[in-house]
Amino acid sequence: MQQGKASIQFEQPVRIISRASVGSKKEKEGPLGQLIDYIDEDPKFGKNTWEEAESQMQFLAAQKAIEKAGISQNKIRYIFAGDLLGQNIATSFGIMNLNIPLFGLYGACSTMGESLSLGAMTMNAGYADYVICMTSSHFASAEKEFRYPLEYGNQRPFSATWTVTGSGAVVLGKEGGMVEVKGITTGQVIDYGIKDSMNMGAAMAPAAADTIYHNFTDFNISPDYYDKIITGDLGYIGQTALIDLLKKKGYDISKVHTDCGIEIYDGETQDTHAGGSGCGCSAVTLCSYILKQMEERKWKRVLFVPTGALLSTVSFNEGQSIPGIAHAVMLETVN
Amino acid sequence: MQQGKASIQFEQPVRIISRASVGSKKEKEGPLGQLIDYIDEDPKFGKNTWEEAESQMQFLAAQKAIEKAGISQNKIRYIFAGDLLGQNIATSFGIMNLNIPLFGLYGACSTMGESLSLGAMTMNAGYADYVICMTSSHFASAEKEFRYPLEYGNQRPFSATWTVTGSGAVVLGKEGGMVEVKGITTGQVIDYGIKDSMNMGAAMAPAAADTIYHNFTDFNISPDYYDKIITGDLGYIGQTALIDLLKKKGYDISKVHTDCGIEIYDGETQDTHAGGSGCGCSAVTLCSYILKQMEERKWKRVLFVPTGALLSTVSFNEGQSIPGIAHAVMLETVN
Repeated sequence: MQQGKASIQFEQPVRIISRASVGSKKEKEGPLGQLIDYIDEDPKFGKNTWEEAESQMQFLAAQKAIEKAGISQNKIRYIFAGDLLGQNIATSFGIMNLNIPLFGLYGACSTMGESLSLGAMTMNAGYADYVICMTSSHFASAEKEFRYPLEYGNQRPFSATWTVTGSGAVVLGKEGGMVEVKGITTGQVIDYGIKDSMNMGAAMAPAAADTIYHNFTDFNISPDYYDKIITGDLGYIGQTALIDLLKKKGYDISKVHTDCGIEIYDGETQDTHAGGSGCGCSAVTLCSYILKQMEERKWKRVLFVPTGALLSTVSFNEGQSIPGIAHAVMLETVN
Repeated sequence: MQQGKASIQFEQPVRIISRASVGSKKEKEGPLGQLIDYIDEDPKFGKNTWEEAESQMQFLAAQKAIEKAGISQNKIRYIFAGDLLGQNIATSFGIMNLNIPLFGLYGACSTMGESLSLGAMTMNAGYADYVICMTSSHFASAEKEFRYPLEYGNQRPFSATWTVTGSGAVVLGKEGGMVEVKGITTGQVIDYGIKDSMNMGAAMAPAAADTIYHNFTDFNISPDYYDKIITGDLGYIGQTALIDLLKKKGYDISKVHTDCGIEIYDGETQDTHAGGSGCGCSAVTLCSYILKQMEERKWKRVLFVPTGALLSTVSFNEGQSIPGIAHAVMLETVN
């Protein structure tokens, strides 16, 4: 495999040595409910505000991941983390008491891909023995940040997704664990001029297609190299767009593709419309379902591609389009 | 020098091979005005909104830095960038047309330190031949995001700082340029419980003190190792707090300390009160003044420590404190 312009292949094994996921009531009721490490049916997680609740989820996910890694907290050299809220407040207040150096990230819902990418780069370069990569989202804090106060009770179109209330964290190390990070493909901002914030799957699909295409060409591989190619939160509408876009470039991923937003909720019974979304969507799905499937040797090679829609209420209200970004991480079960 | 828990010493030389700064009218009128590469006295930079203006500044700074580096744009492997606005919109829309893979960052006004840190880590590890590290802020977009609409004409207390309208970008490479990145010390989130968003220097000083302290102890050096220790945007009030905090830990930096927020404006004539602030403050000061002083061999060793106040209007209005973070970069003129 060759190293291409948007990709890095790691020479030193970087292992995911532990994983932890946190969710709330709707996540518990979904198909992955039994796989999530910590569920609090109170969406405020015992706190006063939605934002504090989201911070608490990050804290719980980090704590649980460290505990499962079986190492002491002071051995973790860096946290790579971010969230959806303005000025990353869920992260800043969530990880504050861990007293670990922080690289704060913003990649919208692609953050789990970005944090894993930078974490693996850091580990592979020998800068750290252990790092944490994590992110979160919260349905209520995201609706407040991006859309309408919950009290309005506005109707949601069928193209809208449902922001996952959850957090996922992994500890990367050099030894232990069953899944390696083999390489990464880093996305650029891609804008197809889509302006509908209730159809973010369509806004993000071009970015996912671009990153997956670069992954194929940089490593000279085809879709069947992977057992699964799993995007972040395109949902059903974005999935169709992604498959079409890659077909036009000569790649058919329809047999191996799924999406965290499709896996995390039951669209028929949970009223989630196009699927789940938010930074927490790909993070929780990775840390509860994807890595478990790999540990159980059901999948050997997975391309994990969290996808982000780069908008704010300010950019949206000023008539700007919604560009997307996607960061791909090549995961492989150790022999 | 030993490698400590919060620091990395780079083995491969990482060079700042070009630097570019962009500013507007107030920055032109300040002490560094003649050193800024590109000035547009129109604070909208020919665009329709403050946010588009800020994006345009990032685009101009990146373009200028690439041009000054004398390399073609497609040789730049990654952009490490972020800004102050919710969901990093200045960055996303600013760098979109460069078609370069992006790691989006959020470190509030410490972003230039964070981007330089991750950029240098990436270069030193051999992942890239060239990367861009950059950030921006805009007085009007920041006031809108964090404080009051400009039309209110609210009074500003003397402890308040003035957000710099500007952007700074550097290209890192392996050869060329006169300044090396020798090492970094990565900050953690530090909260002293300060809640006054009009006195952010005081909120950030403890984080700056913590990072500088770790830099001293990790490398077993004292303040006189550096010709200058330059924080980001503590301003006059934060400077006093920082010097006091480090004195209590046994280090006197009073002889070598200055602050970008103190350097960029003339406090007596420009009505900027406690000094300049914003991501653009440290970025513009680095790319116009600090690196020039080093190139002219007036300073050999500089510790550049951009400082960030981690608040949003949501966290602030919910009564949360304003934690800080600071990321230190060790710069040294090549012999």
